[in-house]
Amino acid sequence: MEAAIMGYGTIGSGVAEVLRINRESIRKRAGEEIGIRYILDLRDFPGDPLSEKLVHDYRVIAEDPQVQVVVETMGGVEPAYTFVKAMLMAGKHVTTSNKALVAAKGAELTALAKEKNVHFMFEASVGGGIPIIRSLNSCLTADEIEEITGIVNGTTNYMLTKMSREGLEFDDVLKDAQDKGYAEKDPTADIEGYDACRKIAILTSLVCGQQVDYEDIHTEGITDITATDIRYASAMGRVVRLLASSKKTKNGYAAMVAPFLLPPEHPLYSVNDVFNAVFVHGNVLGDAMFYGSGAGKLPTASAVVADIVEIARHPDAGLAVDWSTKKIELADFNSIRNRFFVRTTAERPAIRAVFGDVEYIVAEGISGERGFLTEELSEAAFAAKAEQLQGILQRIRIA
Amino acid sequence: MEAAIMGYGTIGSGVAEVLRINRESIRKRAGEEIGIRYILDLRDFPGDPLSEKLVHDYRVIAEDPQVQVVVETMGGVEPAYTFVKAMLMAGKHVTTSNKALVAAKGAELTALAKEKNVHFMFEASVGGGIPIIRSLNSCLTADEIEEITGIVNGTTNYMLTKMSREGLEFDDVLKDAQDKGYAEKDPTADIEGYDACRKIAILTSLVCGQQVDYEDIHTEGITDITATDIRYASAMGRVVRLLASSKKTKNGYAAMVAPFLLPPEHPLYSVNDVFNAVFVHGNVLGDAMFYGSGAGKLPTASAVVADIVEIARHPDAGLAVDWSTKKIELADFNSIRNRFFVRTTAERPAIRAVFGDVEYIVAEGISGERGFLTEELSEAAFAAKAEQLQGILQRIRIA
Repeated sequence: MEAAIMGYGTIGSGVAEVLRINRESIRKRAGEEIGIRYILDLRDFPGDPLSEKLVHDYRVIAEDPQVQVVVETMGGVEPAYTFVKAMLMAGKHVTTSNKALVAAKGAELTALAKEKNVHFMFEASVGGGIPIIRSLNSCLTADEIEEITGIVNGTTNYMLTKMSREGLEFDDVLKDAQDKGYAEKDPTADIEGYDACRKIAILTSLVCGQQVDYEDIHTEGITDITATDIRYASAMGRVVRLLASSKKTKNGYAAMVAPFLLPPEHPLYSVNDVFNAVFVHGNVLGDAMFYGSGAGKLPTASAVVADIVEIARHPDAGLAVDWSTKKIELADFNSIRNRFFVRTTAERPAIRAVFGDVEYIVAEGISGERGFLTEELSEAAFAAKAEQLQGILQRIRIA
Repeated sequence: MEAAIMGYGTIGSGVAEVLRINRESIRKRAGEEIGIRYILDLRDFPGDPLSEKLVHDYRVIAEDPQVQVVVETMGGVEPAYTFVKAMLMAGKHVTTSNKALVAAKGAELTALAKEKNVHFMFEASVGGGIPIIRSLNSCLTADEIEEITGIVNGTTNYMLTKMSREGLEFDDVLKDAQDKGYAEKDPTADIEGYDACRKIAILTSLVCGQQVDYEDIHTEGITDITATDIRYASAMGRVVRLLASSKKTKNGYAAMVAPFLLPPEHPLYSVNDVFNAVFVHGNVLGDAMFYGSGAGKLPTASAVVADIVEIARHPDAGLAVDWSTKKIELADFNSIRNRFFVRTTAERPAIRAVFGDVEYIVAEGISGERGFLTEELSEAAFAAKAEQLQGILQRIRIA
C-alpha cells in the first residue's frame, strides 16, 4: 500500500520514522508493506533520506492513482481541509492527527468518506497515542456512554503538576514548559483551554453521533490558577487539573473545559506531567479509563500508523463512524451543576449570608482571605450568589 | 442477526440483559437487530422471560442455519471446547468470556475460525469490560509491545486493598471477600494466581503471535502475604499487588504471576478494590494503561456484546488475529531479574555476609526480625543467596 504524508513536521516525520522502525511487524499486521510515495511540504529537507519524495503541490498526490492512503499532519483548518477533501474526492483513505480540522469539519469529512467508500480516520487527533477514538467506535459499542472526562492537554497538565510539586506560580512554570519544549512560544491554545475544547468536542460528537460545535462549549483555561490555589488544594488533599468533560444529563450533553479540584479517589487524580487520560462511564461497563502519552512525536505517530494498518486490513470501508452533520444542542451551561471552591476577602458572616453554612478550608500560611466549599449549585445559581458576595478572589469547581 | 447463548449463568444472563437494556443503540451500531434464538443450559429457568428459548442439546444450535453468532459463557475447558469447535465447524461466529478455554485452546480455535472464515473473539476473557484484547489486536498495531503487566484478578486485588487499608490478615479478608461474593467458596483459582496466569498467557500470546502454554509461566499467589508484609510495604510507601507480567527480554518473553511491591509512581499503584488494569509499554507508543471493571455481570457482558457488534459490522472475518499454534519458548524463569524485599530473623552481619550492604526497612512495632531490599538479582542468584541465609520469613519482588 502506497501512502503520502502531508506536512513533514514533528508528527509527519514521526510517521515516517515509525513505519521505518517497526517495518517488519507493521507489514505482518497490515498484511502488506506500507510504502511512502510522497511527502508534501512547503519546505525542502536537503539530506533527509526521504527528500526525494518531496512535492510542493498536493494535486500531485491527489492525481496519482498509486496513492491509496494519505496522512494529514499539517495542523490547522486550512489548507488541511482543502487538501483532505481533495484526497477523499479522489477516492483515497485519509488519516489525520489534526484536532482543529476534525473538530471543525469531522462530520462533513466522515460523510464524504462514506460517500466515496473510503476511510476518514483520526485516532491521533485526541489523546495522542491513547486509542480512545477506536475504543469509543469499536470497543465500547455495547454501552450508552454517560460520561467522558479527560485530561487531554499535556502542556497544561505538566504545568499544573509542576505547580503542585514545587509551589511555583503560573508564569514561572509556563517559562519552564516553554524552555523544555512542552509549551509553544505562543501558548494560548493550550493554556486557555482551546486545544482541550476541540478534543472534547470530538469525543462528544462520537458519543452522541452528531456534530458538536466547539464554540458552544464553555471553556476556561488555567491562566488564573495561582500558587495560593494550589496550597488550598493540597490542604484539601486535592490536585488541580484541567478537565474536558461531557456528561449526559436530562437537558442534553453538558460539556465544559475548566480547571477542577480532584480528590485522590478520582480516576484522573494520578495523571501527572505530560500524560493524558480519558475516563469513560458506560451504563453497563461502569467506569473505565485510558491512559498514555497524549502528545509527542512517536506516540502520536503510533496512533496514525495504527490507523494505516486498520485501513490496510479493511480497505473496504463501510464501517463508517456514526457522525451526522446535524448539529446537537448541548445542555445550557447555566444548568450544569457542581460544587465550587471559593476564595474571598469577605468575612464569615457575609459568606454565611449568601452561601449558608459552608465548609471552610484552612491552608497554612495564608491570611487575609477565606476559602470555602459551596454545596452543589447550578452555574446560574452560583453566579447569582457570587455577585452578592464582595471580594471573591477565585472559584474552582470540584470534581 | 440471530445469536445463541451457551451457559445462562452470571455472564450469559448479563449478555441477554445488555442486549435488552441497550437494544436501540446496539441495533444502530451493529446495523441490525441482535436477536436471541437459543439459550443452552442444563438447567431450566421457569419464569425467566427467555425460558422458551432454552435448549439442552448444543447440536440444536449447531444445526440451525439461522444462528449466526454463538456466545460461550459456560467457563472451563470442557465441554465448552467441544461445543465451540462444533459451532465454528458449522460456520458460526463465536465470542467467549472463558479464559480457561482461550488460554488452553485459543490458538487452535483461532486457526479453525480462520479456516471457516468466521470470527473467534474473546474480549471478555481478560480484564472483563476493559477493551484490552481489541486494543492489542486493532489499536496498538504500530508498536512492538515490550511489556504488558496487569492487575487482572479482581478478587485478589480486593483482598490486598483491604489488607492495606485495614491492616487485616489474609484469612480475615478472604472470609470477607467470600461473604461479599467477590471470592468463590473454593477460592483457589484466584488466590493461587491460576486465573491471572491464564490471562497473562492469553495476553502474551497476542503480543508474540504464538501459543504460550500457561503451565510454563511461574505463578505465585497471595496466600503467603501477611499483615506484617503490608506494614513493611506501608513503611516503604508501597502497596502489594498481584501482578501478571510479560516482558520482552533478550532471552525471550519473561512471564510471571506473583505479588509485587509497587511504588506510588507505578501506573498500577492506584488500582484498588475489584478493579483491573493493564499497563502496556510499546516501543513507539511509550507507556499506556487501560483501567476498568475486570469482572462482574454487566461489565463482562458489555465486552461480549461489543464482540457481537464487531461481528455484525464485519461479518466477513478475514482480519483474524495473528496467533500461531506454534509454541513459544519463554525466557528461563531463573534468568528473570528483580529487586527483592526480604524479611528474616537473621542479624545484620549475617545479612551483610550474604547480600552485601543492603537497604534496611524499618516498620514501626515490628521486632525480632529485619526487613531489607536487595540489589537487582536474577531468580537463580537470589535463590542461591537465600539458601545461605538462615531464618528467611518472606520475600516479595519489587516493581
